[in-house]
Amino acid sequence: MPLIADRLAILGLELPSLATPAGAYIPAVVSGNLVFTSGQLPFVSGALPATGKVGGTVSPEDAKTCAATSVLNALAAVQFAIGSLDRVTRIVKVVGFVASEPSFTGQPGVINGASELLGEIFGDAGVHARSAVGVAVLPLDSPVEVELIVEFA
Amino acid sequence: MPLIADRLAILGLELPSLATPAGAYIPAVVSGNLVFTSGQLPFVSGALPATGKVGGTVSPEDAKTCAATSVLNALAAVQFAIGSLDRVTRIVKVVGFVASEPSFTGQPGVINGASELLGEIFGDAGVHARSAVGVAVLPLDSPVEVELIVEFA
Amino acid sequence: MPLIADRLAILGLELPSLATPAGAYIPAVVSGNLVFTSGQLPFVSGALPATGKVGGTVSPEDAKTCAATSVLNALAAVQFAIGSLDRVTRIVKVVGFVASEPSFTGQPGVINGASELLGEIFGDAGVHARSAVGVAVLPLDSPVEVELIVEFA
Repeated sequence: MPLIADRLAILGLELPSLATPAGAYIPAVVSGNLVFTSGQLPFVSGALPATGKVGGTVSPEDAKTCAATSVLNALAAVQFAIGSLDRVTRIVKVVGFVASEPSFTGQPGVINGASELLGEIFGDAGVHARSAVGVAVLPLDSPVEVELIVEFA
Repeated sequence: MPLIADRLAILGLELPSLATPAGAYIPAVVSGNLVFTSGQLPFVSGALPATGKVGGTVSPEDAKTCAATSVLNALAAVQFAIGSLDRVTRIVKVVGFVASEPSFTGQPGVINGASELLGEIFGDAGVHARSAVGVAVLPLDSPVEVELIVEFA
Repeated sequence: MPLIADRLAILGLELPSLATPAGAYIPAVVSGNLVFTSGQLPFVSGALPATGKVGGTVSPEDAKTCAATSVLNALAAVQFAIGSLDRVTRIVKVVGFVASEPSFTGQPGVINGASELLGEIFGDAGVHARSAVGVAVLPLDSPVEVELIVEFA
């Protein structure tokens, strides 16, 4: 398995600098050999690339890209917590919240943006359990929020 | 404590074959002595027995049945992950998402369909912590989605 | 670090008696050195101090107070599970669900009511990872529901 930094470079990706949490908490906490991340929004350089509800003003395709961006922010949080992504032994769980018009039922396709990227970066260690749900609204009107539980050694 | 297979037979229940996840992930992942399941929909033979929002086109009674069915699918995922449900030492946590009309506030009664079944199958080991929330919409317009954290030995 | 009971007294706070769960489950379960609480509503003496959606009939300020009250109920559940809050070594994760009008996007400010109180009570051990989401509706029309994962020794 190549180093994760090399995998990211091959994929043309770069970990963002850590987004400042919008409240009295931190991006990730370690307990035992698990990292629990905070819910991550798809910030790019401090701004949300899209706002609104999927099935309304936000397309499923744009939301899927947002889910991938949220994962990059989550991985920056994991790196903050354990120093290096090369310590990751398993992506255990992904929860993806999709701000949805009540008529939009394609949440799995949106959160595949998170799942597929984790597979590309971590290979077999990136294959996870997942929940995808459609919520009324997310902080700052973000279309997507993603949280991770990650095992490390 | 009888074997879980015997308990299921006494209850007239059968574990379904494992539902294929609707995305780039798997039904359950083990970390340490915990199993984290993916969010489970109430599939029966590959189809949802009901679709829509509870308090709208779906009755609370039908949604409660869906919550129990989701648990059976979740237990099939746990069995996939650890080989046998006889290894389960505790149902730790249940999260139940109920697709709800904003005026429907009976989520606890719906998710009791999950909780009561876990008690019937696992006895004291089935008594869990739980969150029940009402969300705008769920994948494929399912009325209910249930995820589990399960401890095993 | 002073005893948690002393911290609570200094802050003018008192742990409530344990709210009876509204279903077939218990307020908290221990697995390994983690406590998983059930989702907690802001009950005060058995009644909800506010009902409705934030951004609608419930103000963000009142909802923030409800988030703090939900944390007190969650800590009563943790104490029930492990005997004493002095055993807490880390608040690992907070998930805050805010029943929201689809136009209300200030969930982080509401859930800061939970986060800030945990910091005041537990100091560095109270600094946690967090997800805040806006949902369609919560049990009994509660404006807020909060669940915790807590590490103890």
